[in-house]
Amino acid sequence: MDSKKSIYFFSKENPEGRSGMKNLLGGKGANLAEMASLGVPVPPGFTITTDVCCEYLEKGGMSDELWEGIKKSVGQIGEWSGKSFGDPACPLLVSVRSGARVSMPGMMDTILNLGLNEKTLEGLVELTGQERFVWDSYRRFVQMYSNVVMGMNGSVLEALLEDHKTAKSYKSDADLTADDFKELVIVFKKQILEFRGQSFPEDPWDQLKGAVEAVFDSWNNSRAKTYRQLNGIADSWGTAVNVQAMVFGNMGSDCGTGVAFTRDPSTGEKLFFGEYLIDAQGEDVVAGIRTPSPLCGIDKGSLEKTMPIVYGELCDIYKKLELHYRDMQDLEFTIEKGRLWMLQTRTGKRTAQAALKIAWDMYQEGLITKEEAILRVDPESLDQLLHPTLDRTQLTEELGKALPASPGGVSGQVVLTSEKASSEVQKGHKVILVRQETSPEDIEGMVAAEGILTARGGMTSHAAVVARGMGKCCVSGLDSLFIDREKGEIQLGGRTIKEGEFITLDGSTGQVFLGQVPTKDPDLGEVFHSFMSLADEVRTLKVRTNADTPEDAQKAKEFGAEGIGLCRTEHMFFGVDRIDSVRAMILAENSSERKQALSELLPHQIDDFYKIFKVMDANPVTIRLLDPPLHEFLPHTETEVIELAKRLNLELSQIKQRMLGLSEFNPMLGHRGCRLAVTAPEIYEMQVTAIARAALKAKAENVDVRVEIMVPLVGTPEELKHIRNSVEFVMANELKGDDLPWTCGTMIELPRAALTADEIAVHADFFSFGTNDLTQTTLGLSRDDSSRFLGAYLQHGLYNQDPFVSVDQKGVGKLVQMGVQLGRATRADLKVGICGEHGGDPKSIEFFQSCGLDYVSCSPYRVPIARLSAAQAQIKEQIKQNERSLH
Amino acid sequence: MDSKKSIYFFSKENPEGRSGMKNLLGGKGANLAEMASLGVPVPPGFTITTDVCCEYLEKGGMSDELWEGIKKSVGQIGEWSGKSFGDPACPLLVSVRSGARVSMPGMMDTILNLGLNEKTLEGLVELTGQERFVWDSYRRFVQMYSNVVMGMNGSVLEALLEDHKTAKSYKSDADLTADDFKELVIVFKKQILEFRGQSFPEDPWDQLKGAVEAVFDSWNNSRAKTYRQLNGIADSWGTAVNVQAMVFGNMGSDCGTGVAFTRDPSTGEKLFFGEYLIDAQGEDVVAGIRTPSPLCGIDKGSLEKTMPIVYGELCDIYKKLELHYRDMQDLEFTIEKGRLWMLQTRTGKRTAQAALKIAWDMYQEGLITKEEAILRVDPESLDQLLHPTLDRTQLTEELGKALPASPGGVSGQVVLTSEKASSEVQKGHKVILVRQETSPEDIEGMVAAEGILTARGGMTSHAAVVARGMGKCCVSGLDSLFIDREKGEIQLGGRTIKEGEFITLDGSTGQVFLGQVPTKDPDLGEVFHSFMSLADEVRTLKVRTNADTPEDAQKAKEFGAEGIGLCRTEHMFFGVDRIDSVRAMILAENSSERKQALSELLPHQIDDFYKIFKVMDANPVTIRLLDPPLHEFLPHTETEVIELAKRLNLELSQIKQRMLGLSEFNPMLGHRGCRLAVTAPEIYEMQVTAIARAALKAKAENVDVRVEIMVPLVGTPEELKHIRNSVEFVMANELKGDDLPWTCGTMIELPRAALTADEIAVHADFFSFGTNDLTQTTLGLSRDDSSRFLGAYLQHGLYNQDPFVSVDQKGVGKLVQMGVQLGRATRADLKVGICGEHGGDPKSIEFFQSCGLDYVSCSPYRVPIARLSAAQAQIKEQIKQNERSLH
Repeated sequence: MDSKKSIYFFSKENPEGRSGMKNLLGGKGANLAEMASLGVPVPPGFTITTDVCCEYLEKGGMSDELWEGIKKSVGQIGEWSGKSFGDPACPLLVSVRSGARVSMPGMMDTILNLGLNEKTLEGLVELTGQERFVWDSYRRFVQMYSNVVMGMNGSVLEALLEDHKTAKSYKSDADLTADDFKELVIVFKKQILEFRGQSFPEDPWDQLKGAVEAVFDSWNNSRAKTYRQLNGIADSWGTAVNVQAMVFGNMGSDCGTGVAFTRDPSTGEKLFFGEYLIDAQGEDVVAGIRTPSPLCGIDKGSLEKTMPIVYGELCDIYKKLELHYRDMQDLEFTIEKGRLWMLQTRTGKRTAQAALKIAWDMYQEGLITKEEAILRVDPESLDQLLHPTLDRTQLTEELGKALPASPGGVSGQVVLTSEKASSEVQKGHKVILVRQETSPEDIEGMVAAEGILTARGGMTSHAAVVARGMGKCCVSGLDSLFIDREKGEIQLGGRTIKEGEFITLDGSTGQVFLGQVPTKDPDLGEVFHSFMSLADEVRTLKVRTNADTPEDAQKAKEFGAEGIGLCRTEHMFFGVDRIDSVRAMILAENSSERKQALSELLPHQIDDFYKIFKVMDANPVTIRLLDPPLHEFLPHTETEVIELAKRLNLELSQIKQRMLGLSEFNPMLGHRGCRLAVTAPEIYEMQVTAIARAALKAKAENVDVRVEIMVPLVGTPEELKHIRNSVEFVMANELKGDDLPWTCGTMIELPRAALTADEIAVHADFFSFGTNDLTQTTLGLSRDDSSRFLGAYLQHGLYNQDPFVSVDQKGVGKLVQMGVQLGRATRADLKVGICGEHGGDPKSIEFFQSCGLDYVSCSPYRVPIARLSAAQAQIKEQIKQNERSLH
Repeated sequence: MDSKKSIYFFSKENPEGRSGMKNLLGGKGANLAEMASLGVPVPPGFTITTDVCCEYLEKGGMSDELWEGIKKSVGQIGEWSGKSFGDPACPLLVSVRSGARVSMPGMMDTILNLGLNEKTLEGLVELTGQERFVWDSYRRFVQMYSNVVMGMNGSVLEALLEDHKTAKSYKSDADLTADDFKELVIVFKKQILEFRGQSFPEDPWDQLKGAVEAVFDSWNNSRAKTYRQLNGIADSWGTAVNVQAMVFGNMGSDCGTGVAFTRDPSTGEKLFFGEYLIDAQGEDVVAGIRTPSPLCGIDKGSLEKTMPIVYGELCDIYKKLELHYRDMQDLEFTIEKGRLWMLQTRTGKRTAQAALKIAWDMYQEGLITKEEAILRVDPESLDQLLHPTLDRTQLTEELGKALPASPGGVSGQVVLTSEKASSEVQKGHKVILVRQETSPEDIEGMVAAEGILTARGGMTSHAAVVARGMGKCCVSGLDSLFIDREKGEIQLGGRTIKEGEFITLDGSTGQVFLGQVPTKDPDLGEVFHSFMSLADEVRTLKVRTNADTPEDAQKAKEFGAEGIGLCRTEHMFFGVDRIDSVRAMILAENSSERKQALSELLPHQIDDFYKIFKVMDANPVTIRLLDPPLHEFLPHTETEVIELAKRLNLELSQIKQRMLGLSEFNPMLGHRGCRLAVTAPEIYEMQVTAIARAALKAKAENVDVRVEIMVPLVGTPEELKHIRNSVEFVMANELKGDDLPWTCGTMIELPRAALTADEIAVHADFFSFGTNDLTQTTLGLSRDDSSRFLGAYLQHGLYNQDPFVSVDQKGVGKLVQMGVQLGRATRADLKVGICGEHGGDPKSIEFFQSCGLDYVSCSPYRVPIARLSAAQAQIKEQIKQNERSLH
């Protein structure tokens, strides 16, 4: 072996590479070499290393030595395959493919059937007896090669092909005959000469040299550069080039081609599974022109029956490969004259259900460790399992596509107001609530509706967050949607749809369809629960839920939540039985009027909290005191305001003036959170009273109540101290010496809170990072307004992700780290969690684990995702630590 | 001396303390001791130390030893003053006063005339011959003592006094006779016995003991506690107690009392200045019942003429004290039987003008150093000098009081719209623009108006900031103001004022007056400029200005600005000659329409920039590219929208839909700043083109152009890189190789920008901290909405200052520090400034100096304030460094 070897063979006869050599041989080359080294028959070939590519790109050309080496290697391949490059009698054809360290699908160039020319193709026609196929292959080769290697604009030859079809009145490519292709090749070559000033190369060696150089050069095409930039791939890596003998499955009835999975990719069952076609080329199986036959089974067309020996070989190989790679494999093979060639093996794609089943089975089989099993399942994919989904085989007309805000597939009649939603549902109808954007007053309508569609708002808009919290399907930010409330209709996808007409939402893709599309129910099954328990054994991060109602809390508990990390009290205020008291409280002109209104709310809040405590028995419940600005609770339309005035016995002008006084330019940065309690302490006093009484009531029934009172929007230690004093006063007053355990802490959702966390921790028993608001303030980005430019930002790579979906680690994350560090510097035992939407995002959870958080809290339907993510985060951290301790 | 001395005498005969012993003797005690040690005659007395106070409070009582010491010391005072405590023949009376380390005015208790009882008062009557005065003093003593020492509710005795006056049909206290007081004292004592269950003490020693204990106890009264908390005074310091012989200026025509300033406190002239009354008590001068005579001059009533010897003594003393304290002193003295006693000396309060003059003169006289002179003037006070002010001797009815948003005193006719303001001013009227709150579209009206009054918004609301920028008077956030646009009137202070009626604003106090109040013009004078040059010699921090027009730039330059730190380009967009083009640009449906509209704006922008470059010749000009959300430029009323549609030849519905699409929930966090340029790059391209062309045009006229292009609202390095690329492209294109110097940098106004400043600095030649927006985002506090709760926050001590006035050092300041540190870690030569409103706030400037900033930028009228503040910051830093190098 040379000290710096340029070329590595892969073939049974001389497998020089291994799968561990991906940096040098690229992913594809290393994998082919690995298969060869296992004794699996792969068409022989060789890999030119990435080092050579880098040298080539630096020098701007190929050395004579390299070219001689390539020629010698092609000769070797000919020998092994019993063919000869450029030999008309038995021509060796090769493919020339790029193959970088990591897969860059479609970014660089590939050339097939290289070695074909006017002479060798005649030989191939004789060998295969398929004149049309050979000439078609040749014209494809001419098109591909002239484009990739000679720089011909692909559309020119494509246009000639279309002209030809038009002239002959053909409907599709399938109508083209061998003679048509012969004519076309002549026209193509003439055109190439004219456009590029050089003839199409007839000499296979010239073809090869050009192809290898073109693949090297393609490392620096603009597509590939952009892809590298976006995916953090270094320009210096270069690509390897794989030159491999072509094999043909269409040379007679002892030939064929097929694809296989070592287990069922849809269900995960441990069953060998695949399809094949006799006398066909690889593409034909995928193209679906002919119906393929199954590999296994008693069907007389099956490979098992028609070619039992080949089938036996294939079975041996698939078992060997799965065992070797320790994962379900997706295989491609070709049978050339009774001889089996493996063209590809790779980790097979699978559904969420299959991923779970395969990971669990392989762990049970002892094939993989517990940790490996846990890492095998993409947490995000669990979402598919939890929500009903559309039957995508029965889709109707697509009206538009926007953000997949909350998964699930639902159909319903269009309604444009929350009230209409409630009333229609009471009549037994299913509805989709369509709104410009939702607000807390839409809660009842959202509860009633099957799904929510909004014209505005991003992945963490009110509609999206609340819908995910409810496990309700939602599509948000559909810009092309126009809502005409006066006419009671919407315009979408060129259609006008009236209230009462059906549409269907796919919350997993963001699509909206006309009419009703059937759905499929989710089926979790035993494997799901076993697998999740496995994850629970590993993880250290606790998983809580964001739940505002006993129903949500119950659901989340079933999904494995270990407490409530965020119980928002504002949604409770919107119930029809209490909203008027809330409004009276807001419109109160003095403290005693306000207290009167609050006293009406008190029994409701006691009941709310009592029920939640009961559900969450023995688990912590974090109750956030009132957070949103008061104007959110007031009615918006003139009619509603007039009615409210009547009900509350107030002057209309009085209400209007108060409403004007409450309106804000930037409500997000306005009079909300603990600021409400500074100016109107009675509100929190009522809430804390309710908490204490509910807790005592539940305790009297032997419920193990663990309540954590959380103060929102704290920015200074003085604020928290001020509120905490009042909380302590009320609790002492209500508990009257009862030893009920309770703590008081704060949200960290303003940059200032994180920056001064050491001082704030003096007054806090716990921190809960509110990363939604922290993202809004740190990035200066309103989540309700960002949809208008977020697309452009992602497109230009100015954000590499939607910061409301996955936490911005460099900015917001830095504040989280500072907050944890500073907070624990003051109080080492400070309990720290996170209750923003990021609590259900796997990437974010991994980050939070690294920050040393105690728990994450997310919406009920994301609890399983968080559990799995937390387990994976723990494992990855362990792996990193082990690596560090090795070095 | 004891190892732990409890009592220190102050008197010529035995001055035991010094002014440096404030921690032990309190401010008052140390100062009296200092005077005594200079040989200045002060009524003899002694100070009980703060240590004793602490011991007393800890033990909860006075030790016998201490009491013996006090008694002995009182005896000594009597000896020195030739009187005797409790002696009816020649009674010694004393005052008992608190005196903490720092002045806590009015927080703790004081008792005068102690030692008076039924016997000693007879002696005093004989000595003074003033029966009414002595009895009045006694009843005051009884009231004061019973309240302070015995815990009697003061209003009870006050009510008895009122009853007595009513019964006698007296109109004022002056009608009360000696006999009335005698009666009252009897009634008082009876009431005290009844209410407190104990007799009023007749024994002077009992009186003294009670008084000393009461003063000690007053350290812990709730008033004092709150004051300490608010002012950061430690509870552990304690207060000293001063017991001092009373002297009387009302014992005959060889007696008198007066006050004096060593220089004129109003103008600063070096003239001894003061007033006195013959045969009178101290209070009488202040109360203004009798007209006092001047101290100096040929007036035959002057002290100089009537008591030349005493006057000579006084002159010697005032010179000695000014020389000793090296500052203008405010003196109080009493002449008792031809003998001069100094009761107080302290640094005299003075007007801004006097402060400047005194500091400059004393520096010229060699009395103080340059640095001391600079530190002597409160930078904030300069504001008084720059704006015309109301003649406060001629005030009218006050209608309300809100925030003093921008100083000055102006009168004008009320107008409610910007248009009305312009049209009325064109007719030659002076107007006050009254708005709920202003927005950029009000600029023309604000320019036209004399002053601005708003019902909403804080010290840095739009109205306040723009008004200060223009040097225009503004009162903001007047909650009690109700604007009725339909009726064309406002309601305020119980009055209804129609458009066209006059009101007057005092922007320095926040007051609003009915009708017109005369004003006084400012007069800067030579001393001002000499003094400011002195400051400039010292400071290292550069001072620039925020200016959007050539006029503002010119004014700022006159005030000493060294460049423009922030030239906002959005205000230029509102000119009547261009606003329609701006709107056409916003409503454009595609890039080419947008470019058309922008091409109409280009010549205007070139002209704007060209004129500013000319004014700022050889000074840097930082131009910020467009920042506000586009909807700010659209009209708001239905009528205006209809007219716009006509002018632009657009469908009304089209405009409305576009306007709806542009509206935002939180515009502050919305589609603005560089985000506009990501979605519509044409806008910045036009602006940069205009900058380049204007610069070349000015350069051709030999103007030394130094342009800095500033990108707003950057949150990620990618954003800045993206915009910078485009800026570089346009500049290269326009400059065509010209070597005109220009740089490109960014605002740091989002927490994320500060947190990732190391990465952002890669693409920035300079940083400019936008601390207005940085405060809004870091604290999550909308400056337009905060006025509703800011008052409560300041009141409860949750903020110790309005964070929009003085920078929040712990939060926002921490981000500024991080930003500077991280930025300079990447690029050591990074130029760093600040262009928020804090750039004109002295406390903030001191902080920015400590952060290592290169410059601050503020509105033109604050440039002198910033220059002085920067000089003071430099001096204070130097002092700290010297102190550190000593330790």
